[in-house]
Amino acid sequence: MKVSDFLKRTHQRLVTCDPSATLQAVAKLMHTHDIGAMPVCELGVRMVGIVSERDLVRTFAKSEWSELQHLRARDVMTAPVVSCGPEDSMQGAQELMRRNRFRHVPVVENGRVLGMVSIRDALARRLQESEDEINVLRDVVVAARHR
Amino acid sequence: MKVSDFLKRTHQRLVTCDPSATLQAVAKLMHTHDIGAMPVCELGVRMVGIVSERDLVRTFAKSEWSELQHLRARDVMTAPVVSCGPEDSMQGAQELMRRNRFRHVPVVENGRVLGMVSIRDALARRLQESEDEINVLRDVVVAARHR
Repeated sequence: MKVSDFLKRTHQRLVTCDPSATLQAVAKLMHTHDIGAMPVCELGVRMVGIVSERDLVRTFAKSEWSELQHLRARDVMTAPVVSCGPEDSMQGAQELMRRNRFRHVPVVENGRVLGMVSIRDALARRLQESEDEINVLRDVVVAARHR
Repeated sequence: MKVSDFLKRTHQRLVTCDPSATLQAVAKLMHTHDIGAMPVCELGVRMVGIVSERDLVRTFAKSEWSELQHLRARDVMTAPVVSCGPEDSMQGAQELMRRNRFRHVPVVENGRVLGMVSIRDALARRLQESEDEINVLRDVVVAARHR
């Protein structure tokens, strides 16, 4: 399955934040939309990084309390960002995440972010495809035995 | 595959925290051990809840800055906890997480926590098993065609 088909099928609504967003604003977006990561975009379109739950927890672990409220998305985001394209396969996107040890990868076309794919989405999708293939192969085996 | 076999194979080292741990201590444990959740245990053994990255982000989203430093693991953890046993199948553990919309489930035997399984671990494991089965079935199909 192609990444673009996956985005269509899951009706994903893209959530982004501004580089100047406070950590609390970022946490609120993640919590409200039940997501683990989002692209950080200037003027809503130009992606400059990704901020994830893991980035927040790392910042939480390493910063003084007094400092936390002054930090912004740009200070804690992961950049530069490895991305995939809408024409890539879900398997390719998964391989990219596995190799780079990421849990999320943004989908980018002509410099615009279209959505996000998580490694869990990619694994679940491939598992579904594998199980479909198993069912087809089992039918073939049963048919061959009854020839 | 059984959950106990999965824990053995992945050489998982169990990380827990005390209910009185500060949120910063919890975040430090998650960051240091590169984990997304851990059991909260009294006296190191009796599990009273689970605390996850998601719990920290939710707390971050909803609390005042001045309040955060006074919160403890017991204030933000998820409880009571749904758990699985070492004799359960990885597929059963995955189904449990899917049904309850959890990303992690603790493995408990006789009231003692043995480890944690994530939905990502479970999906990756099942994908591996499916792909092995596809290879076996393909061989059977090829053999049947050449009889």
